[in-house]
Amino acid sequence: MMTALDSPPLGLVLADIVHSHRPRSEAGSVPAGIPHLSSPPFDRFGIAVATTSGDVFSAGDADLPFSIQSISKVFTLAMALSADDPGRLWSRVLREPSGTSFNSLVQLEVEHGIPRNPFINSGALVVTDHLMERFPDAAGHVLQFLRVQAGQHSGQGPFIDEVAAGNELANSSRNLALAHFLKNFGNLHRSAEAVVENYVRQCSIMMSCVEMAKAGLFLARGGHGANGPVVSRSEAKRIGSIMLTCGMYDAAGEFAYRVGLPGKSGVGGGILVIVPGECAICVWSPRLDSKGNSLAGSAALADLSDRTGWSVF
Amino acid sequence: MMTALDSPPLGLVLADIVHSHRPRSEAGSVPAGIPHLSSPPFDRFGIAVATTSGDVFSAGDADLPFSIQSISKVFTLAMALSADDPGRLWSRVLREPSGTSFNSLVQLEVEHGIPRNPFINSGALVVTDHLMERFPDAAGHVLQFLRVQAGQHSGQGPFIDEVAAGNELANSSRNLALAHFLKNFGNLHRSAEAVVENYVRQCSIMMSCVEMAKAGLFLARGGHGANGPVVSRSEAKRIGSIMLTCGMYDAAGEFAYRVGLPGKSGVGGGILVIVPGECAICVWSPRLDSKGNSLAGSAALADLSDRTGWSVF
Amino acid sequence: MMTALDSPPLGLVLADIVHSHRPRSEAGSVPAGIPHLSSPPFDRFGIAVATTSGDVFSAGDADLPFSIQSISKVFTLAMALSADDPGRLWSRVLREPSGTSFNSLVQLEVEHGIPRNPFINSGALVVTDHLMERFPDAAGHVLQFLRVQAGQHSGQGPFIDEVAAGNELANSSRNLALAHFLKNFGNLHRSAEAVVENYVRQCSIMMSCVEMAKAGLFLARGGHGANGPVVSRSEAKRIGSIMLTCGMYDAAGEFAYRVGLPGKSGVGGGILVIVPGECAICVWSPRLDSKGNSLAGSAALADLSDRTGWSVF
Amino acid sequence: MMTALDSPPLGLVLADIVHSHRPRSEAGSVPAGIPHLSSPPFDRFGIAVATTSGDVFSAGDADLPFSIQSISKVFTLAMALSADDPGRLWSRVLREPSGTSFNSLVQLEVEHGIPRNPFINSGALVVTDHLMERFPDAAGHVLQFLRVQAGQHSGQGPFIDEVAAGNELANSSRNLALAHFLKNFGNLHRSAEAVVENYVRQCSIMMSCVEMAKAGLFLARGGHGANGPVVSRSEAKRIGSIMLTCGMYDAAGEFAYRVGLPGKSGVGGGILVIVPGECAICVWSPRLDSKGNSLAGSAALADLSDRTGWSVF
Repeated sequence: MMTALDSPPLGLVLADIVHSHRPRSEAGSVPAGIPHLSSPPFDRFGIAVATTSGDVFSAGDADLPFSIQSISKVFTLAMALSADDPGRLWSRVLREPSGTSFNSLVQLEVEHGIPRNPFINSGALVVTDHLMERFPDAAGHVLQFLRVQAGQHSGQGPFIDEVAAGNELANSSRNLALAHFLKNFGNLHRSAEAVVENYVRQCSIMMSCVEMAKAGLFLARGGHGANGPVVSRSEAKRIGSIMLTCGMYDAAGEFAYRVGLPGKSGVGGGILVIVPGECAICVWSPRLDSKGNSLAGSAALADLSDRTGWSVF
Repeated sequence: MMTALDSPPLGLVLADIVHSHRPRSEAGSVPAGIPHLSSPPFDRFGIAVATTSGDVFSAGDADLPFSIQSISKVFTLAMALSADDPGRLWSRVLREPSGTSFNSLVQLEVEHGIPRNPFINSGALVVTDHLMERFPDAAGHVLQFLRVQAGQHSGQGPFIDEVAAGNELANSSRNLALAHFLKNFGNLHRSAEAVVENYVRQCSIMMSCVEMAKAGLFLARGGHGANGPVVSRSEAKRIGSIMLTCGMYDAAGEFAYRVGLPGKSGVGGGILVIVPGECAICVWSPRLDSKGNSLAGSAALADLSDRTGWSVF
Repeated sequence: MMTALDSPPLGLVLADIVHSHRPRSEAGSVPAGIPHLSSPPFDRFGIAVATTSGDVFSAGDADLPFSIQSISKVFTLAMALSADDPGRLWSRVLREPSGTSFNSLVQLEVEHGIPRNPFINSGALVVTDHLMERFPDAAGHVLQFLRVQAGQHSGQGPFIDEVAAGNELANSSRNLALAHFLKNFGNLHRSAEAVVENYVRQCSIMMSCVEMAKAGLFLARGGHGANGPVVSRSEAKRIGSIMLTCGMYDAAGEFAYRVGLPGKSGVGGGILVIVPGECAICVWSPRLDSKGNSLAGSAALADLSDRTGWSVF
Repeated sequence: MMTALDSPPLGLVLADIVHSHRPRSEAGSVPAGIPHLSSPPFDRFGIAVATTSGDVFSAGDADLPFSIQSISKVFTLAMALSADDPGRLWSRVLREPSGTSFNSLVQLEVEHGIPRNPFINSGALVVTDHLMERFPDAAGHVLQFLRVQAGQHSGQGPFIDEVAAGNELANSSRNLALAHFLKNFGNLHRSAEAVVENYVRQCSIMMSCVEMAKAGLFLARGGHGANGPVVSRSEAKRIGSIMLTCGMYDAAGEFAYRVGLPGKSGVGGGILVIVPGECAICVWSPRLDSKGNSLAGSAALADLSDRTGWSVF
């Protein structure tokens, strides 16, 4: 399925991808009312690939930190599965595509408080709540994991943008509504406020494409991270399947169709993609399409998939 | 990604799968009100694997014909893409998971007559309508394709159960409702009655696991069928992505999670699964789970995936 | 509750209503794709009041025939209740406001084929189907009733615009979808095609404001029509309650709030209103508001209610 | 419309209503998880009628205080309309029947944070928020109004059950979810917590049938209360229309059909009904039907309507 990396070398491919896809105009949009997400210039574009053989290739603005937003859900899920018997979590959240916009309360009502998957907001709140049983400072636990995987021995590395987190927390009525609604169905154990705070702080983690690609590599390596197993091989495969079917908001099918790889996007403009057995890829460009996925990032990944033959299909 | 087939040989594995998964009791259900789908004994169980290297392995009731029902949607889609500029079809049907039960009219209303994917009934009706532009006898065209791929030089091979088709046609109010509704939105070009008739006849095709595995093999071979290209490599990959995200009714995510392979099920109890680059698998057992997928068949495929390591993740 | 008719005399009030509310510009809209509904000039405006004491007052274009469209549902319902044990009909259709747009299939799916009330299209199809058990030519039966009530001893009187009916029938995919969907749930006994044809022909009845006010008078008289009882007093009250809660598409609450009287509108621009014990009112002006109710007609009725004190509240 | 009160005298009619409708068994249900609502014995049944001519008739347990719950919404709405320009409130909440269960978040999402009417929970929260602009202690303001209308010069009169309010507040996740969701749409001005607290305290008001009938009498008197105008005649009529179309949860249509009068029920088992120009009626019996309305109370009101001829239709 995976073709070997032929010439040209990957570094050159990435440089060319940057050349082709770095935005030249302010196409797309930024999330309304979130100042720190609209501050990066529209022409920011970075890409990084961390391979299972230990190499890291990158191009463009691959060392600039960006707000990972919903990409954090992949790592919170992995931490929750790692910390506990996976079966307990899977009784609280399904694994089906949502088929509606990512914030919808409708599904939650119809399915009596069981979110359809861990990547819609309600599902992510349940996963955070679950992780908090073992690690009340869930956001700090996720951050620590990311720092270790990204191999930051010195310098900055992944960090929480506390100012941004504070701003988002002051505007998290919708997530508070979801959390109280989950509590109403008995599917939230901690206080709604505490869970939303942890959730918002995870989403406010800042890291670069290079760091993100390294942090996600364990999913391309059967669950094996920088310092040993993170999740079992079986759970790693399953996280991949959830990424493929649910990782791109309401464009999961389109992304699977165009790119053919498990991915997870965030409204900060980042996308993490896994090529099982081969590599983890992170692309970042801040402006979004109508579904909330990075406009230039999605196009770049489709291009990269065509050039390299990387696809699970 | 794909591990090589180690010992034991695949033939023995399949025999053991049959031994383990052939139903011993009347668990599960059969579709209400469709006599010919409830007639096979509950303990029917067959499995077949057709490999890209040209071998066919099978076990159990792999030579008994069964009603392929919605598995036909894979082939009608391939025929429609093969017969025409794919872009024209994709303007009439989306590629997103539906997130609701497979017959729902709700989605169609919300999205103004554009079905979410080609595998929900409304989407399949649009695909059939599209194919009928070139081949008014769409069902016959699909049947002919299946016969050629299954390599039936003599004997019976795939055929349409005309009695069953007649019965289903007399009870197709829901599909007629969908067809008229599509027409109301301008997304059906032929008469509602003609499209539903073609659709029902495709679903009434009878074939065996061995024939189905051979017929589906082109999807594991980059679109290359028994007698040459059926669809382009790119479209073959895309059909696979649609199978993975939408192929198992409202259990697509769960199937991707447990089995990790593109699949398409039918309420006749059959499931077609593709291992890209490796093989096509067909399993059949008539009794269904609550989502409408073969109960024993799904379990067998999860088991087979575990034993062989076949998974796209 | 009802105040007596003080001076000025009702005839003058109506003349002034016409003066105030006859449209001076092409505000509002007409239904797309129905030629005969968009043909009347935008400034057509008529109003008629038939009182329980036997008088008829009218002003403006009150003698011009218009297409009654959904107002017919009131009479089909009365005929169905008159022809049969009411309990049998009420087991097939509810009496609750719909809370969604008048054509929605969603509710039907959620409530398993039982329409929420007799005035949404699905409900009206069930009522027509019910009436057809006794009167296969349901549309003719309704027409005959209207002619008798309107007291047309000579001249034209209510008639079916057969050309318009034919055109609408050729564009009734949505109603055919609803009918097949009802049949799928076992809640349609005749063929979908026959029921839709009868339904469309009833909607294509042409009559004037004066005729309509006289035809609706039985509802202001406890069910007692021109030639004797049409429905029981109890059923007459109940038809009034359904008109008040469900008669104005998705603006029933707003109409009850502004006008305070049971009413039923049609997309032909007519509205029939009942003042229990006092009179029946019909207003007509062809251009519609965003909910499908006559723009000038609704405003005129609110004005008339304010001037006369007519309100059930 | 309204027939005069013939013999037998109303006092005897009410006594007979109590005799006929006082529950003899534990039919119906009580709200789960609200101890103080399930504590009254199942056979409690009271009824009171306060007439516009100044008389009060009652029978059964008409002097026992019960929890008014959602009936409070009628009075909060009147206070909000009384305290301010009505137009400002009506820009924040619609007046349409909801067509779904009374707590549904779905509608709120579809209609972008504008509740469909003031009697569903989301609408009531907006009304409370609106009232709090003038009266931060909205619950106290409503209570004071009720005490004045009920004419409690000595003794207990309406009071807030603070223990019950505290219990409900500790279990108000769903209302908190609604409040945060409204805030997300910009349709809540005070803090979600403060609004929910005021809302819960209003619902926890305890009063008897006699007190409730007297308190609701202003709606039968064109807005004129014990000490002068409460709302304008026009707003009184409009509150009546909202009660008729939206006052009985998802059984508003059925209640309008059976009883034919504006009513508002609460899950405490009380129902307030208005006969415009004649009287206000309160009935109470604690056990509920499947829609959340008093089982015996609804039946008694249908009976009373039949016996007296009271109906707006």
